[in-house]
Amino acid sequence: MSKDFHHRRLIEFVDTDMAGIVHFSNYFRYMELAEYAFFRQLELEMMHHRDGGKLAWPRVHVECDYRKPLRFGDEVDIRLRISALREKAIHYHFEFRRVQDGQPGELVAEGRSIIVCAQVDEGGDIKGSRTIPDYIAEVLRKYVQPE
Amino acid sequence: MSKDFHHRRLIEFVDTDMAGIVHFSNYFRYMELAEYAFFRQLELEMMHHRDGGKLAWPRVHVECDYRKPLRFGDEVDIRLRISALREKAIHYHFEFRRVQDGQPGELVAEGRSIIVCAQVDEGGDIKGSRTIPDYIAEVLRKYVQPE
Amino acid sequence: MSKDFHHRRLIEFVDTDMAGIVHFSNYFRYMELAEYAFFRQLELEMMHHRDGGKLAWPRVHVECDYRKPLRFGDEVDIRLRISALREKAIHYHFEFRRVQDGQPGELVAEGRSIIVCAQVDEGGDIKGSRTIPDYIAEVLRKYVQPE
Amino acid sequence: MSKDFHHRRLIEFVDTDMAGIVHFSNYFRYMELAEYAFFRQLELEMMHHRDGGKLAWPRVHVECDYRKPLRFGDEVDIRLRISALREKAIHYHFEFRRVQDGQPGELVAEGRSIIVCAQVDEGGDIKGSRTIPDYIAEVLRKYVQPE
Repeated sequence: MSKDFHHRRLIEFVDTDMAGIVHFSNYFRYMELAEYAFFRQLELEMMHHRDGGKLAWPRVHVECDYRKPLRFGDEVDIRLRISALREKAIHYHFEFRRVQDGQPGELVAEGRSIIVCAQVDEGGDIKGSRTIPDYIAEVLRKYVQPE
Repeated sequence: MSKDFHHRRLIEFVDTDMAGIVHFSNYFRYMELAEYAFFRQLELEMMHHRDGGKLAWPRVHVECDYRKPLRFGDEVDIRLRISALREKAIHYHFEFRRVQDGQPGELVAEGRSIIVCAQVDEGGDIKGSRTIPDYIAEVLRKYVQPE
Repeated sequence: MSKDFHHRRLIEFVDTDMAGIVHFSNYFRYMELAEYAFFRQLELEMMHHRDGGKLAWPRVHVECDYRKPLRFGDEVDIRLRISALREKAIHYHFEFRRVQDGQPGELVAEGRSIIVCAQVDEGGDIKGSRTIPDYIAEVLRKYVQPE
Repeated sequence: MSKDFHHRRLIEFVDTDMAGIVHFSNYFRYMELAEYAFFRQLELEMMHHRDGGKLAWPRVHVECDYRKPLRFGDEVDIRLRISALREKAIHYHFEFRRVQDGQPGELVAEGRSIIVCAQVDEGGDIKGSRTIPDYIAEVLRKYVQPE
């Protein structure tokens, strides 16, 4: 049975704009947070490969659909799933729900991102995409849930 | 003949992240900047309707495809087109090109957004979508270029 | 005996800049977070006065001294104290320490801010400073620790 | 006679918060922008030393006093002066004025920052402070205006 990962965040004052709601660009920060929390939970080190090399995970595509606004003081539950796992790429799907009575409630937004595994050279520059290391792919596979 | 709108921005230090490149979430800020610059150039007031009411333009969808990184010191040219004009919504298409020798050069990213015209009540809350006012739609029509 | 308040935050990727460290402007976001967390813990509602009016807490002064960089993956412990409580203003003092073995360790930065209690009119505009409501001042007094 | 440097910026929607005004942390972004624009105008390369080494300019202190709010659509004029030039440090002073009829008008905020010249090693890490290179100090001296 495949698994979900949930990450929660309290909406911060600085995340709002003069319309009184969370600025739409912040949902992409939240997706990234959820993704890093996911890797931490899996005890996968995203930046340092076990074989000694360095990895980076640049985004090639991101998107978000907005249904309801989030406001200062809201808590948001971000459900992360892997909708597809490719040789060199991870396709994420995110659901944003307002927390109500401690549970994920109303769907407020839905996001997607595609990140690619890339090699980093010694100067810290990204050199190009590469196959996701096996020990990472193996763990990620448990979280794959096609949309 | 339909028209383009171009907006330029110098990449700021704070826009970068530890990978040495512009953080992917900033492209959505750039799209919004281009959009506001577009409205200013058209002398359309986005927030105050001519009839006295207030308007808001919430996003219902945004997306971005990344091809090449932008770095501190780069100048980016953002080409905005309207790919579709609906009764209540504007579909934007954005091309991000690195400025080279003063001209838009290499394509670094491509974005899309859909914004909806909404009524704002006196307390400043968004009440729901509405038809785009005629005097706005009329001007926007000149910029429509289907993809 | 007067009391401390501590707030912790994991450094996020987006908080870094191309120098590989947390961008200096983010420390002011962290101070604000600590402050809101402080009010939440005290069950003081910062924005809505018990008497029905609305309050705002604009900053009149902020500052920060930087000693050591923070990096992605670090956890920072923010110690908030009230260094002075005036009729209309709160003077905060903040210590930022890197969390080491679960404890606040090395001092990485020190900040100060002065916020003023202000009345908000019905349109949401700040009208001017006012005396801090008694029920708020009473609770805050327990946290006063002159530098 | 010593000189001023002015930088202008149009306030962006994303810079605002739910109080309808520019979030206080953004003034530090504006200071940094003014500083980089200043170096560009002087044709001083802040990051790459003429002798081939790399330089960084970490902040050791920043502060800001807020007098009036800035709002979306405002244009702000940032006047940068060097209030003191030390062997290893630059002390900046900033005045933020709302642009009125094309001229710097009402003072809305005042800022200060102290940045230190630092050596960067080949891995990109900051190694410690160093004397400001002569060819940089010589140019900066013309902008020194003690407060």
